[in-house]
Amino acid sequence: MSMIVNRRDLDFLLYETFDLESLLTEQRYADYDRESIEAILDLAQSVAEDKYLPIAALLDANEPEYVDGKAITIPELKEALAAYKDAGLCTTGYDADVGGMQVPDMVHQAINGMFVCANGPASNYEFLTQGAANMLIACGSQELQDKYLPKMVEGEWFGTMCLSEPQAGSSLADIRTKAEPVGDGSYRISGTKMWITGGEQDITENIIQMVLAKIPGSPPGVRGISLFLVPKVRVNDDGSLGEHNNIALAGLNHKMGQRGSTNCLLNFGETGDTIGYLVGGENQGLANMFHMMNEARISVGMSAVQYALGGYLYSLDYARNRPQGRPIGNKDPEAPQVMISEHTDVKRMLMAQKAAVEGAQALMYYCAQMIDKQKTSKNEEEQGRLALLLDLLTPICKSWPSEYCLEANKLAIQILGGYGYTREYPVERLYRDNRLNHIHEGTWAIHGIDILGRKVSIAGGAAVKYLAEEMAATIEAAAQWPELADNSQRLAKAGKQIQETLQAVAQSPDPALALANATLFLNAMGHVVVAWMWLKQAIAAHQGLVGANADDRAFYSGKLAAADYFFRYELPRIDTDLTLVANLDSTCYDLSAEQFVGR
Amino acid sequence: MSMIVNRRDLDFLLYETFDLESLLTEQRYADYDRESIEAILDLAQSVAEDKYLPIAALLDANEPEYVDGKAITIPELKEALAAYKDAGLCTTGYDADVGGMQVPDMVHQAINGMFVCANGPASNYEFLTQGAANMLIACGSQELQDKYLPKMVEGEWFGTMCLSEPQAGSSLADIRTKAEPVGDGSYRISGTKMWITGGEQDITENIIQMVLAKIPGSPPGVRGISLFLVPKVRVNDDGSLGEHNNIALAGLNHKMGQRGSTNCLLNFGETGDTIGYLVGGENQGLANMFHMMNEARISVGMSAVQYALGGYLYSLDYARNRPQGRPIGNKDPEAPQVMISEHTDVKRMLMAQKAAVEGAQALMYYCAQMIDKQKTSKNEEEQGRLALLLDLLTPICKSWPSEYCLEANKLAIQILGGYGYTREYPVERLYRDNRLNHIHEGTWAIHGIDILGRKVSIAGGAAVKYLAEEMAATIEAAAQWPELADNSQRLAKAGKQIQETLQAVAQSPDPALALANATLFLNAMGHVVVAWMWLKQAIAAHQGLVGANADDRAFYSGKLAAADYFFRYELPRIDTDLTLVANLDSTCYDLSAEQFVGR
Repeated sequence: MSMIVNRRDLDFLLYETFDLESLLTEQRYADYDRESIEAILDLAQSVAEDKYLPIAALLDANEPEYVDGKAITIPELKEALAAYKDAGLCTTGYDADVGGMQVPDMVHQAINGMFVCANGPASNYEFLTQGAANMLIACGSQELQDKYLPKMVEGEWFGTMCLSEPQAGSSLADIRTKAEPVGDGSYRISGTKMWITGGEQDITENIIQMVLAKIPGSPPGVRGISLFLVPKVRVNDDGSLGEHNNIALAGLNHKMGQRGSTNCLLNFGETGDTIGYLVGGENQGLANMFHMMNEARISVGMSAVQYALGGYLYSLDYARNRPQGRPIGNKDPEAPQVMISEHTDVKRMLMAQKAAVEGAQALMYYCAQMIDKQKTSKNEEEQGRLALLLDLLTPICKSWPSEYCLEANKLAIQILGGYGYTREYPVERLYRDNRLNHIHEGTWAIHGIDILGRKVSIAGGAAVKYLAEEMAATIEAAAQWPELADNSQRLAKAGKQIQETLQAVAQSPDPALALANATLFLNAMGHVVVAWMWLKQAIAAHQGLVGANADDRAFYSGKLAAADYFFRYELPRIDTDLTLVANLDSTCYDLSAEQFVGR
Repeated sequence: MSMIVNRRDLDFLLYETFDLESLLTEQRYADYDRESIEAILDLAQSVAEDKYLPIAALLDANEPEYVDGKAITIPELKEALAAYKDAGLCTTGYDADVGGMQVPDMVHQAINGMFVCANGPASNYEFLTQGAANMLIACGSQELQDKYLPKMVEGEWFGTMCLSEPQAGSSLADIRTKAEPVGDGSYRISGTKMWITGGEQDITENIIQMVLAKIPGSPPGVRGISLFLVPKVRVNDDGSLGEHNNIALAGLNHKMGQRGSTNCLLNFGETGDTIGYLVGGENQGLANMFHMMNEARISVGMSAVQYALGGYLYSLDYARNRPQGRPIGNKDPEAPQVMISEHTDVKRMLMAQKAAVEGAQALMYYCAQMIDKQKTSKNEEEQGRLALLLDLLTPICKSWPSEYCLEANKLAIQILGGYGYTREYPVERLYRDNRLNHIHEGTWAIHGIDILGRKVSIAGGAAVKYLAEEMAATIEAAAQWPELADNSQRLAKAGKQIQETLQAVAQSPDPALALANATLFLNAMGHVVVAWMWLKQAIAAHQGLVGANADDRAFYSGKLAAADYFFRYELPRIDTDLTLVANLDSTCYDLSAEQFVGR
């Protein structure tokens, strides 16, 4: 059993649930068939298992060190990243016209997922590069692309995203980094950026920082933010490296988890001129950044899923091999012990992990499929519909796994007991690593306000309507299996509860009160969407069961059991949340800071 | 604002909610009045704040090292423990006849709580000593007590509890450590013990290990376990230290949190004879250990509360001082930012922490009050009633804070955002520390089976009946405040749900199926009990509001808001759990290990 991927389940998602094969018939993916996709996945799995996984604990125990303004990483990290690059896996996410492999996003996600599961902190360097490069592709001038993109696509140079500042984390309106025009079209960047993953490292010769900054005289707040490409080392016109661009590493953050990624405090323009280049239009920085934000946020969700997958696979393997105790009712102390996977509460903890991991994973592939359809569809109406659905689901993709896949990691520790609490086993590390995901790329609260305050009402509520239509279609498809009737009814009821809640919220006289329980709405909406994903998987499982062999029957019946688990153990929990949201409960809204502890 | 205790709240619990003053009129506590108790609490707070708190991060970053069979700890730890000892705080929990201060258990808990909050890993050494010494007092011969107890009470020697073995964690029936009679009344101990906190250290000259082992020829399983006192260094008849007793440190466990406590793998009798002395009768070891287990389990719960209190106080202070963002609806980017404690979701996260911490804390003091009443009551019937109630509540005391106070720690990190994820701030450390509490002293699942499989039915269900009576009395007392009617009704309904669930479970044809969702029952029952604690606090708050000044009005209204929060945001969540328990839902029970991942 691999500890980084369940290929049987991946097949189930890609082919049986989300129909990758029909996507492969599109012109865009004409180079690929199922066999060649398998070969790429095999390659990725072997690099992830052989190079990334074995050094994960080592990297955690030997975090990067700050020495004389440099961030020093261990050589094993450099070797692992080189293996990834040498295998050409950097290029899976790019189109052919910029030198990429142009595989479907579903496949790209599957590949990246294996690397996160094997060693997320090592993967961050390359994945942030992909985000930065995609931003450059989407908004950068041809000149900038020609100069910087090829090296980023090849993995020769890494990239970053520099948004936050020490005094401005969630509130980008308050950033202070300045960009003053030099006169030749470039800008002099000055200011301090915080929380920059990969902002400094000793792995690549150059680092391409994508930096949010304000041009003097621009409007206050987010409407005055522009985006700049700022290289660590200046690049000459012939492509050779020039002088250092005066980005100083002021310090490294020492984190609870994700220790293998450098996380930096950077000073721009302090030791000399730091030159940057405008990407996209002046004052369009936030819009340009948000261009990539959906992708980044879905990546965060995927990463939360994969950390939990690691814990799930490890704890499952452990539970199947650790003898302890006897079944309830067997009081004979001389009877042999059973494997702990026989104890009902261990099964419950495994099932809770499976339901969270595989439910959230399905959502990730559903969104990846939509991204692929956006790229292949010629129908403008369909593209609009896909864009709205993706917009609506993005906060769920980001936040639901950050919460429930972290809970899964918590349960993985619990299954291993005392051993799980030690650093000799990976489950505690995965838990620490995963705790970040609720914080970066927008906190849980911010996504709650995003979905309830904005996404549910854009285009006159069209996204919610489209989602309801999609869910109804799944319920209809499920109708041919009477065994799914109960779960279908539960999903239909939950969908209705969401609608009623939205109607109640729309009546609020006070817009701030309407959003007082937005986080709870996001939580409940996530449960409904994941339940829907489980109904989709249950349909695929029933289809698969027809004529399946014994192994496959166990697999499919496990999918059906996990669907039942989610509908019975998880979905009903939305009642409390939605009641509070619909009632415009003001218990928290009304509080003043003095009430918490008294004098 | 202190970061280790809210003295205003402690007063509220001790005096306004649980009437410490009337307890102080008992003969047993004749030496104390409110003033002298305050002085002891002041002393404890100053030692905890001055000596324990400042080294907490240092101790976490410098865990004990294994060097040539020894466990080396940092000197700052030794200094802190010496300050605690020199202040005489070791003795608060013991009766006067063994040299203790004989303060009420409520006060003893309050003192220990401050030290856990300041630096739990440092506190473990002394608290485990108290557990071992109490076991010796309860079950040991006068001779053993005379020889070992005074040094333990004074904090001169530390003590441990050695239950688990590498192959036997939760399943004590399967321990293999042997105790062979030497012939002079002592025993030769051989075997390996695992997870022994404080099992080896370089702080005290001697360590008194309380070890579970089997005498050859004793019955199989738990009925053949005996308890032994096994000193690290043998003690001569005149009390001087003799030879090393051949307990070898085979290794230290490296944990996610609680890093400052040594956690040891110990080999007994490997390098020479290890001599031990029987404590209590042969084969009575488990009963004797369980004698102290309620106390140990309530201590674990208290410790889970205190780690969360640390996170709560820190994140509250941070939220009141960190400007970020603007109120919803204020779109002017030039308006000043507000403190994050003004954002509703931050208030929610603070309130969730307050509701968990102060709700669980009330439960701890309620139990401590019962222990005090057991010690002072002359009425046998009352003592029996108190014993049964404590038995019933113990699994809740242990497990509910281990779950919900850990969630509180998670929210404290969230409030600090990226900063909370770094090791420069204490909130991530407290989260790591607290993750242990669901594992040791019986896992969550074991306590679930304990409560649903045993505690609810002992003495013909008397404990549940007594609990229902106590809850009814609180509801009756609340009747004079119409504002509490809604919460009272919710509590009455929840109590009825528990009763109905128990009736349904009693009908199960299969005892194993009856317990299939025992963990969920424990979870729900914990919510009901904590809700009851909030109703108790709400009554005390209403009493306090009469004639209160402005500061106190804020404090009391905060208590009422927290009660409302718990009844509205938390208590309704029991519906899902209790429905599953009552339905004898077999989704998890029916699973086989093959269904999880397939081939």
